[in-house]
Amino acid sequence: MDIATLIGLVGALSMILGAIMMGGDLAAFINIPSVVIVLGGTIMCTLTMQRLPVVIGAIKVAINAFIYHLDPPEELIDRIVGLAVKARKDGMLALEREQIDYPFLHKGIQMAIDGSTPETIKAVLSTEMVSLRQRHERGHTIFKFMEGTAPAMGLIGTLVGLVQMLRTMSDPSTIGPAMAVALLTTFYGAVLAFVVCGPIAKKLENRTDEETTLMRITLSGVMAMVSGENPRSIREQLISFLSPDLRPAPEESE
Amino acid sequence: MDIATLIGLVGALSMILGAIMMGGDLAAFINIPSVVIVLGGTIMCTLTMQRLPVVIGAIKVAINAFIYHLDPPEELIDRIVGLAVKARKDGMLALEREQIDYPFLHKGIQMAIDGSTPETIKAVLSTEMVSLRQRHERGHTIFKFMEGTAPAMGLIGTLVGLVQMLRTMSDPSTIGPAMAVALLTTFYGAVLAFVVCGPIAKKLENRTDEETTLMRITLSGVMAMVSGENPRSIREQLISFLSPDLRPAPEESE
Amino acid sequence: MDIATLIGLVGALSMILGAIMMGGDLAAFINIPSVVIVLGGTIMCTLTMQRLPVVIGAIKVAINAFIYHLDPPEELIDRIVGLAVKARKDGMLALEREQIDYPFLHKGIQMAIDGSTPETIKAVLSTEMVSLRQRHERGHTIFKFMEGTAPAMGLIGTLVGLVQMLRTMSDPSTIGPAMAVALLTTFYGAVLAFVVCGPIAKKLENRTDEETTLMRITLSGVMAMVSGENPRSIREQLISFLSPDLRPAPEESE
Amino acid sequence: MDIATLIGLVGALSMILGAIMMGGDLAAFINIPSVVIVLGGTIMCTLTMQRLPVVIGAIKVAINAFIYHLDPPEELIDRIVGLAVKARKDGMLALEREQIDYPFLHKGIQMAIDGSTPETIKAVLSTEMVSLRQRHERGHTIFKFMEGTAPAMGLIGTLVGLVQMLRTMSDPSTIGPAMAVALLTTFYGAVLAFVVCGPIAKKLENRTDEETTLMRITLSGVMAMVSGENPRSIREQLISFLSPDLRPAPEESE
Amino acid sequence: MDIATLIGLVGALSMILGAIMMGGDLAAFINIPSVVIVLGGTIMCTLTMQRLPVVIGAIKVAINAFIYHLDPPEELIDRIVGLAVKARKDGMLALEREQIDYPFLHKGIQMAIDGSTPETIKAVLSTEMVSLRQRHERGHTIFKFMEGTAPAMGLIGTLVGLVQMLRTMSDPSTIGPAMAVALLTTFYGAVLAFVVCGPIAKKLENRTDEETTLMRITLSGVMAMVSGENPRSIREQLISFLSPDLRPAPEESE
Repeated sequence: MDIATLIGLVGALSMILGAIMMGGDLAAFINIPSVVIVLGGTIMCTLTMQRLPVVIGAIKVAINAFIYHLDPPEELIDRIVGLAVKARKDGMLALEREQIDYPFLHKGIQMAIDGSTPETIKAVLSTEMVSLRQRHERGHTIFKFMEGTAPAMGLIGTLVGLVQMLRTMSDPSTIGPAMAVALLTTFYGAVLAFVVCGPIAKKLENRTDEETTLMRITLSGVMAMVSGENPRSIREQLISFLSPDLRPAPEESE
Repeated sequence: MDIATLIGLVGALSMILGAIMMGGDLAAFINIPSVVIVLGGTIMCTLTMQRLPVVIGAIKVAINAFIYHLDPPEELIDRIVGLAVKARKDGMLALEREQIDYPFLHKGIQMAIDGSTPETIKAVLSTEMVSLRQRHERGHTIFKFMEGTAPAMGLIGTLVGLVQMLRTMSDPSTIGPAMAVALLTTFYGAVLAFVVCGPIAKKLENRTDEETTLMRITLSGVMAMVSGENPRSIREQLISFLSPDLRPAPEESE
Repeated sequence: MDIATLIGLVGALSMILGAIMMGGDLAAFINIPSVVIVLGGTIMCTLTMQRLPVVIGAIKVAINAFIYHLDPPEELIDRIVGLAVKARKDGMLALEREQIDYPFLHKGIQMAIDGSTPETIKAVLSTEMVSLRQRHERGHTIFKFMEGTAPAMGLIGTLVGLVQMLRTMSDPSTIGPAMAVALLTTFYGAVLAFVVCGPIAKKLENRTDEETTLMRITLSGVMAMVSGENPRSIREQLISFLSPDLRPAPEESE
Repeated sequence: MDIATLIGLVGALSMILGAIMMGGDLAAFINIPSVVIVLGGTIMCTLTMQRLPVVIGAIKVAINAFIYHLDPPEELIDRIVGLAVKARKDGMLALEREQIDYPFLHKGIQMAIDGSTPETIKAVLSTEMVSLRQRHERGHTIFKFMEGTAPAMGLIGTLVGLVQMLRTMSDPSTIGPAMAVALLTTFYGAVLAFVVCGPIAKKLENRTDEETTLMRITLSGVMAMVSGENPRSIREQLISFLSPDLRPAPEESE
Repeated sequence: MDIATLIGLVGALSMILGAIMMGGDLAAFINIPSVVIVLGGTIMCTLTMQRLPVVIGAIKVAINAFIYHLDPPEELIDRIVGLAVKARKDGMLALEREQIDYPFLHKGIQMAIDGSTPETIKAVLSTEMVSLRQRHERGHTIFKFMEGTAPAMGLIGTLVGLVQMLRTMSDPSTIGPAMAVALLTTFYGAVLAFVVCGPIAKKLENRTDEETTLMRITLSGVMAMVSGENPRSIREQLISFLSPDLRPAPEESE
């Protein structure tokens, strides 16, 4: 589980909550109609803009991105090189008995065992990669749309409150509290947009980049195994995907 | 009919309406001159920016996008594979008696029956695809322009109201209601932009992507049929366009 | 003359004028110094940013775009096919006696009659196309710059007014009218930007797209004529540029 | 000297100055601390973002762009064609005695005289072109950064003023003048950004485009001369870079 | 150490500090809860959006960028040409005894000494270059995200303050100070975004460009040395990366 994301999300909300509680009671910041207009309105606009199954799919992708941990690329490289060593010694078919957790690597190895041509393996794995990027892309788009829509719903709610307040401004003492309520939708819209949806949209983007890197490493590794390169040369090719501080000292491995 | 779009649009407007009615009477939010300046002004600016037939065409495209349901890609693939099976058994001409509802697929099959060369079929179908994207593109552009123009017209209307109010500020008790009326155009502009035009523009974009995917699947399928590939291989190629959860278990089909 | 553009521009300004007149006398909205600071300032900044001849050229392009009507593409296709029929019957030289109104088509046909090679014709016509796009591009850039600068000049004018008003706030009764005058520059800036310059910039963009389409059709048509294709095949190629509803029923023409 | 730029810059500032003087004395708009926070702050942030020599280089490029006049492209074409005529009559070496003012053309001709291969000439001149674009690009980036930073510094200054004013709001009569001073930084920021830095950034962009066009014409011309094309053909190629109204009547020159 | 960056950062903050101190005591601008909500909230949102090790890596890259000075490209060219002269005289192996400070150049030379093929050297060095750009890219993204998030947190903090103030507006004399405190978060957000994060993000971008140029020069130089070009020709190729004013007079060196 990607604990930093949770810490970030909960931490930011706690700080805002803390600032509210320091200045008085929390109740003043809870207003059900304002929640409905901002949260409900944002969800409704999202439904207008994208079909329901796609929205649900995007939320699933987001939740998976937070719960399931990606293996670090250096471990994946070790695993691929290990498989390459075994395949070189005992033949490709010996990999059949291996337990491979990463489904994308499993599919590639399975195709290699089944004797698919390198072209077919490359085509199928590339399609999987593009397909994953497209599904994630839809996720970004939806959370980015919500990031843009939430403040707009906040503005609309505040305008409704302002117009109602301004029409009946007979008693000056009521102006302050009415204005406070009117501002609550702007507040909700800003929190929803900038603390929740925006960072999540960015998170999904970063996650997609990481997952694509893993897939690229896997694709390169499987292709190199199929064309029978020796394990040391495979490792050298694959560590070029890593940043220098993650690589084992390159001079020695030479 | 794409019911979610309607639910989203009606739902968002209902929530805003609900917030208005909770705070008093609806009448305070209806002001014909404000409607004219925001809605009329936005339409007029749209006419300045694009010829009338194109605007009407864009609206038609939008309405069609909401009314006509797109078949899911997995059904289209089943249909194409079914046709490929039949063509393999009884020959291409046997497809003449088939009832094909999707016009783009119908056109491709018809050309194949008529004996057009693969190059011609590909060229004609690709042109259709580009032409569809261009027409939809114009639709997005118009709704995006309206999304940008509506708040500007709202601002202009509010400035007119503010200037009129500020000039005759002799009686303080009239300031509130005058200000409320001035803010109404901002409110109308925000609703028109962020609840109506923005989500519709995005919806058209998403719809175009879906329709393009269907066309790409059809194009690949027809080309594969014409070059005489076997139905199972066609299916394998086409399901690569689907996201994994929509695909029939790939291991078994192998 | 592109009447819709004029209707749009005049219509939007009339609606704003109507809203002003409904709320009192028009005189309150006329303030010469404010006009000078917004309109004059925007023009001056435009001169800073681009040489005078280019600015004048851009305005000429814009005026031409509004006055001269573009022939619809389907008429251009009929014309080209007509010429192709004649050229096939009586030879290319027979086109010398034809009256061709569209200069771009005229130039292409003339080069074909003069016996230029297809490569030369293609190079010269392509250069013309790129050159037209560049000149129009400069036009968009200038009007887009004005769209961005006008509200900024409005803001500057309003700030000047606010500072002057705030310094001498001894008599509260003068605050309202002074503030009203200060807001006028914001109002002028918004109208100039969002009702005039923005839609015109977009209009030029759309116009460029239409003109480029005509040029592409012409280029394809002339190239096809020069390589001696038969008229029916030329028509089939050219109508692929049209959207389906503008095409003559394709099945029959086959 | 590009007089229009100066007129634009001085004209815009004069109009703002005029608006200030019409409404009272200029002194109210001069506030040294506000100037320091906006102008100084913007310069400091620019130093944070780019090394000093590059900033100074960008300012030099900008000043050169305003002082030195670019020859119009039609004169450059005449010059190149004239050189081509001479080279054809008396040989390439005869150009050694020619006085060539435009350094880029001079370098190209000199290399041709020295007997460099066409590939070398093309490579060296292209590198010069890319290098010029990169240096100008840095200039745009710096002025665009200042255009974005100046209003931010204005906002920060105004916030400082507002907080100070609000804390000591005991005497209402001081609110107005204090607020006026607070708004001055916003005013300075807007003028610096939208009247000075923004148009200059755009000017440099336009200038780069013009200079690149001159370089492209020169490159084409020198390459054509080196490969021994006849002067009339060289002219025909080069005028394709001009817009139609700048070209000598093309039919006659044929 | 890049002293200008430090001067810029400290200078801008000092000017703001100066403006605060001129208008009264500094204490009024220090409010711990406001610091927590803006700085803490921004950091928390950054954690939501990117994994902790990547954030720490980005900060390390930024610090390195400020501390370590890049050698100017002209010195690097001199060094490479010097090595090329030595290699031509005494053979490639003679370079083994050379002390080479720039790691990227050292790696390239070492590979050349070890007898790697030109293709391998190019592939490995190119991968290093792409890897460096990607890591720097992540740094920009994080600082740009913070630049966008800090004002949003400032807005949220101000909204919290406003709502609290408006609810208890019984005593007018408390409005001013409460409002002042509410505005502090906006002030903190603006300073954090526009004085700190924005310029640093841009600085990293500029730094990446400079470092990439050094790497490109090195790559070209090493490749030229490996293919045995003479030192004068290597110098000529490499100075094409410099802007004209940094090049030694090119005519003479010819």
